[in-house]
Amino acid sequence: MLLPEPIQLLIDALSRLPGVGPKTASRLTFYLLRTDASAAQDLSVALAGLRSGTATCHQCFNITSAGQDLCPICASPDRDAALICVVEEPLDVVALERTGGYKGLYHVLGGALSPIEGVGPDDLKMAELLTRLQDGKVKEVIIATNPSMEGDATAMYMQQQVVPNAVRLTRLARGLPMGGDLEYADQSTLLRALAGRQAMS
Amino acid sequence: MLLPEPIQLLIDALSRLPGVGPKTASRLTFYLLRTDASAAQDLSVALAGLRSGTATCHQCFNITSAGQDLCPICASPDRDAALICVVEEPLDVVALERTGGYKGLYHVLGGALSPIEGVGPDDLKMAELLTRLQDGKVKEVIIATNPSMEGDATAMYMQQQVVPNAVRLTRLARGLPMGGDLEYADQSTLLRALAGRQAMS
Repeated sequence: MLLPEPIQLLIDALSRLPGVGPKTASRLTFYLLRTDASAAQDLSVALAGLRSGTATCHQCFNITSAGQDLCPICASPDRDAALICVVEEPLDVVALERTGGYKGLYHVLGGALSPIEGVGPDDLKMAELLTRLQDGKVKEVIIATNPSMEGDATAMYMQQQVVPNAVRLTRLARGLPMGGDLEYADQSTLLRALAGRQAMS
Repeated sequence: MLLPEPIQLLIDALSRLPGVGPKTASRLTFYLLRTDASAAQDLSVALAGLRSGTATCHQCFNITSAGQDLCPICASPDRDAALICVVEEPLDVVALERTGGYKGLYHVLGGALSPIEGVGPDDLKMAELLTRLQDGKVKEVIIATNPSMEGDATAMYMQQQVVPNAVRLTRLARGLPMGGDLEYADQSTLLRALAGRQAMS
């Protein structure tokens, strides 16, 4: 009743975003009303193109542009195909790429094992990782799951069930702060963690 | 290079919002990629309709639905047309309406006087307020600008230059915390401020 429908609609849609409450949503909405019209328009167009413009890499399951089977990293001849770094989310790839210290390929699991949230091995790209390892060309798998309970459980599971014994299995050094989120780690911490990676028993 | 264009586009557009940095923008973007597709779509549609679906009330300059000359408050026969409450922004109207303790009309200035930011009387709806007061039907003007330096200056200016002497001029009681923002005040503070409003010397 108090607000015109188009405004209430936008406040409601913004409130559904994580970390955005009704007050912040109102603020953003009235900011978009006040500022030049292109801001709301640009955002609208970008949102509309988000799903249609993106696809999942058929090899590593990272996000890529629509119409591409392989992401630029998998398609690049300059990357070391004998090395695969396993991460939970696409943002983790971004964080590792930003260091400039890694030249292998990736494998994006799409999350971590979590019995509490009902995430099992079948919900992650575990079988797909095994398939990638079967032709024997991959010499090392670096596990770069988050340094959390779920990340540890996922690493353990991969060691026991997924990665063949013939493949060298390493894990990012524990320079990473426990309970943190990989994508928030600073670049030097990530570089040190890459350099100091340890063989799993 | 690292991210597909549609994703970078959305991160850039979100980063331009006040209080949203690149990290938050990335988080929101990947949240929208992960969650069901309707979230991004709903937001896109709501943003596209924001400007086209809204208009400014010709009388009080509050936000209203497109195609309406008057907002629902100005158009209502139940509101006391002898009483005008002057506020800075449309969100202030929402805050006052939420108290349920005010039955008059509003006048939205569109900001406050601020020499530092170059906002003068001509940038606000001052002349339009004077026009509304000229037929003598309005008996009281309640100034509800923010309890800040700019809000105080705006109130002073209206007392000296805008509101005729024949009209009773009042101001919200200083139950409001100084330096704060009207829209963040809690309802009981706003109610007490309405009830304890003081005549300006």
